[in-house]
Amino acid sequence: MYLETINGPEDVKKLNIDQMTELASEMRQALLKRASIHGGHFGPNFGMVEATIALHYVFDSPKDKIVYDVSHQTYPHKMLTGRKDAYLYEEHYDDVSGYSNPQESSHDHFTVGHTSTSISLACGLAKGCDLNGKKENIIAVIGDGSLSGGEALEGLDFAAELESNLIIVVNDNDMSIAENHGGLYENLKLLRETKGQAECNLFRAMGLDYIYVDEGNNVKELINAFEQVKDSSRPVVVHIRTQKGKGYGPAEKDKETWHYNAPFNLETGEALAQPQGDDYSDITADYLLDKMKKDPSVVAITSATPTVLGFTKDKRDKAGKQFVDVGIAEETAVALASGIAANGGKPVWGVYSTFVQRTYDQISQDLCINNNAATIITFWGTVYGMNDVTHLGLYDIPMMANIPNLVYLAPTTKEEYLAMLDWSLEQQEHPVAIRVPGGPVLSNGQAVTKDFSKLDKYEITQSGKTVAVIGLGNFYSLGLDVASELQKQTDIHATVINPYYITGIDKELLENLKKEHDIVITMEDGILDGGFGEKIARFYGDSSVKVLNYGLKKEFLDRYNADEVIKKNRLTKEQITEDIKNLLNR
Amino acid sequence: MYLETINGPEDVKKLNIDQMTELASEMRQALLKRASIHGGHFGPNFGMVEATIALHYVFDSPKDKIVYDVSHQTYPHKMLTGRKDAYLYEEHYDDVSGYSNPQESSHDHFTVGHTSTSISLACGLAKGCDLNGKKENIIAVIGDGSLSGGEALEGLDFAAELESNLIIVVNDNDMSIAENHGGLYENLKLLRETKGQAECNLFRAMGLDYIYVDEGNNVKELINAFEQVKDSSRPVVVHIRTQKGKGYGPAEKDKETWHYNAPFNLETGEALAQPQGDDYSDITADYLLDKMKKDPSVVAITSATPTVLGFTKDKRDKAGKQFVDVGIAEETAVALASGIAANGGKPVWGVYSTFVQRTYDQISQDLCINNNAATIITFWGTVYGMNDVTHLGLYDIPMMANIPNLVYLAPTTKEEYLAMLDWSLEQQEHPVAIRVPGGPVLSNGQAVTKDFSKLDKYEITQSGKTVAVIGLGNFYSLGLDVASELQKQTDIHATVINPYYITGIDKELLENLKKEHDIVITMEDGILDGGFGEKIARFYGDSSVKVLNYGLKKEFLDRYNADEVIKKNRLTKEQITEDIKNLLNR
Repeated sequence: MYLETINGPEDVKKLNIDQMTELASEMRQALLKRASIHGGHFGPNFGMVEATIALHYVFDSPKDKIVYDVSHQTYPHKMLTGRKDAYLYEEHYDDVSGYSNPQESSHDHFTVGHTSTSISLACGLAKGCDLNGKKENIIAVIGDGSLSGGEALEGLDFAAELESNLIIVVNDNDMSIAENHGGLYENLKLLRETKGQAECNLFRAMGLDYIYVDEGNNVKELINAFEQVKDSSRPVVVHIRTQKGKGYGPAEKDKETWHYNAPFNLETGEALAQPQGDDYSDITADYLLDKMKKDPSVVAITSATPTVLGFTKDKRDKAGKQFVDVGIAEETAVALASGIAANGGKPVWGVYSTFVQRTYDQISQDLCINNNAATIITFWGTVYGMNDVTHLGLYDIPMMANIPNLVYLAPTTKEEYLAMLDWSLEQQEHPVAIRVPGGPVLSNGQAVTKDFSKLDKYEITQSGKTVAVIGLGNFYSLGLDVASELQKQTDIHATVINPYYITGIDKELLENLKKEHDIVITMEDGILDGGFGEKIARFYGDSSVKVLNYGLKKEFLDRYNADEVIKKNRLTKEQITEDIKNLLNR
Repeated sequence: MYLETINGPEDVKKLNIDQMTELASEMRQALLKRASIHGGHFGPNFGMVEATIALHYVFDSPKDKIVYDVSHQTYPHKMLTGRKDAYLYEEHYDDVSGYSNPQESSHDHFTVGHTSTSISLACGLAKGCDLNGKKENIIAVIGDGSLSGGEALEGLDFAAELESNLIIVVNDNDMSIAENHGGLYENLKLLRETKGQAECNLFRAMGLDYIYVDEGNNVKELINAFEQVKDSSRPVVVHIRTQKGKGYGPAEKDKETWHYNAPFNLETGEALAQPQGDDYSDITADYLLDKMKKDPSVVAITSATPTVLGFTKDKRDKAGKQFVDVGIAEETAVALASGIAANGGKPVWGVYSTFVQRTYDQISQDLCINNNAATIITFWGTVYGMNDVTHLGLYDIPMMANIPNLVYLAPTTKEEYLAMLDWSLEQQEHPVAIRVPGGPVLSNGQAVTKDFSKLDKYEITQSGKTVAVIGLGNFYSLGLDVASELQKQTDIHATVINPYYITGIDKELLENLKKEHDIVITMEDGILDGGFGEKIARFYGDSSVKVLNYGLKKEFLDRYNADEVIKKNRLTKEQITEDIKNLLNR
């Protein structure tokens, strides 16, 4: 087995073409086995095996520097740069992260997880090299799907300004997570069909040199191409045509499903565990499809992650032109929603908490200054969500809650969620965002009669004394737990409050609490800095009411255990109850 | 005079070509006179006079909808849509804002001020129209300079997906505020040189139809072109070549200076008032130029606003390759800075507070997760800065202060600013941002010996009792004023604190304050929500120390008077002193 002998790029360079082709096959086997047991990004890695071998054969990493876009296609790179054990041996599977990671290896230059950043980051490496008078090859590897993102297109445009080496490898498998969306993909298709010969060429129009490799899964072809551009003194695009999921039948056939996978049966491709119970994505799609039937102005928008809204292929087909995928282009998604709302439509953009970060200026300028009635739904804004440092859902509250005009809502149950969504779609006054609760779907079957147009009105759901607990969104249930723990331990019957609104405070209700309460507790599923609880602390700043804010510390967590993080931040009902008792006894 | 008879687009339609050409000349005269007395955006409007006439002749606004990018070129549009008085008569000059504004007219569809948003917003209008089965022409007008921004490029790419009318007018005057930067401008040049005939065409590569108008200041040519694309059922680009500042000699010659102007002498073009005294932009450029001479790895970065960093043309020439203008591409600026820092360089990106908003995800992901030692300088983050609703500098603290790993500093004097900048450039540990104080430059000549690497260490600059005043950045001097007012009125000698750090709290110092202080006051020049003061309120939440946070209410202010806003937010020393006394007497 060649793979077992590869301890770094220098070992790749010892192989001949046939041996490298065999190595590719071994790598695919290892990837397949690991994926079936461990899960992970599948399709992107399978397509990049040969290109990664060729890159390490031709270039001299880490002096030459490779930056992978999104970096969920770095498994082959990790295998060839001293980390093969994490792909060969089950007991080492968790030795590596799913993304490029400078803490693992000097062959990784950035921790990357969001798309469309590689070219601009690589421009920086190239400029740094240039300023210091060094000679290095700087290589950005970017998938076709990531090209539609604003930062990537900015980078393509700016790259031509660099009077230095920069090699942009466009890994074209004709797929994003789902199918690609955008006019540039017609040009990529034309380039593939003409084997790079078409005169009209996006990359050349951006001022870049360009070469095309038709067999992007052929080691020899790739080596030839990379040798051609090595040490180039100006930016050049190497457009390689690859096959997503290459080498595993089910993945070649259903590329969308096999972009990322949970552990599966190797022979059939079927997942080992079936998802259990209700899911907010499905609930959302069902609600919206029903709404769309009754109202042709309702439109769902995704930026390349249709299933976060529950819109699988069949549901997208059902929605027809009432479903829009803008591709990886979050900024455009927000502007589109604002424009649709300004012209009589009812747009709903669904997005992961971690990606809503890509649209601060658009939410503020395109949407909120204009006060257009678009709806944003943020998913997985929770400590119980994705736990890679690049995909945390812990920052959407400080990012969004401090933008004027935005109404950011935090439902605690399925019923509240749907009532808010329905209210948001039917009102014309405000841009509204809804933070879907993290964790399992809670449903109590109770009809929600609250009028959400009366902004910032909290609700006392349990009336008590001495201590008031304000539990935001999916931490509302923690609030209930704390209240009952407190009752058990101290006989204090606490007031419990569902605030509903993240973006504003209910001054009247908070003022009234002063009469019979000494302590107010807030709880939120996100970092505390700039969040919801601090607004309550500010409100009570000049009073004798004491405030304890519960949430997470401002830090970049990585591959954490949620229960440990909860404990470390004193977020269990026992810890909180203990704090309350201590404060009462002071 | 034709202009006096124009009360709306219907009056433009009554004119023949010769009359419209005369109208254009009258409009230019009015613009010139107004600019000389009132100031405003000059070059962009002068180039767009004929195109605006032609648009209103051919299309039926407001049923047909025109969206202007940045919208600082909407003066001609406003003149033709019922707002001519604001350009003809001095007493009405302030009746209109400098940007498109739906509150002024049904011919304006969005309040716009940041660049690169028009195409995506127009896509939304087109989609809204389509969903409702309406027939409208939707027109986005975008300058060549704005095309390099991520959102614009995303929009160009996505537009091709629309199966509906969308007309993108590219107003190509071969200039941004300064010269353009990026490879796509080579393609625009090629298209101009070949009169739109070149096969390699950025817009076609994005999947769009395309026509070219060589004489973009010729009403007849423009009318022909617009008639050709009117009612088109698919997206099309109309690329028009215009002349920035056309019709005024000094502006035609020096396009950068005449992008925006203060009141000036009509004959000579000289400004009526000369800027007085020191300026943080000049100070920055002088410091950096000196540093660059000694250290080749220092590099200044701008995203199309070089003078915010003080880099006028002569200083850019002096800096040579140590100055990089990425064009309007803020996202790329941040990624570039991160990449440069990762490869041995010392990058400094200078940006207006209002535009740093465009880079939340890049600051978080590209820069801070990677903890690269790049420096960001934010300018005009203050209530005393730009006062258009789209250009407020009041949100950078909540946006940036809650991102992990970032060290955001608030100097109070020129000496502190330069000491922080120097420290930031020489350290390798942290991404650092510095918030340049708003208002006039304060200098006390005192050497700064503080070690900024000891993070979050505040400084007691005046030791007192009972009341502690924490004045952040340029509100530190307000803190001093409040302390002396309080001494005068109550004999309380307050403690005064310069916190330096926006991103963290000095727990030890704050803890110590508890001993001899009953009240802690915070002051910041920005909105309170998600800001600095709330962190202090949270810290003292469980104690008997009372906290009063001073800053601005979360709202979108527009064309405000700073003194009035200060009063309304109780930010005068008298108001604050009154509040303190009231709280002491409670």
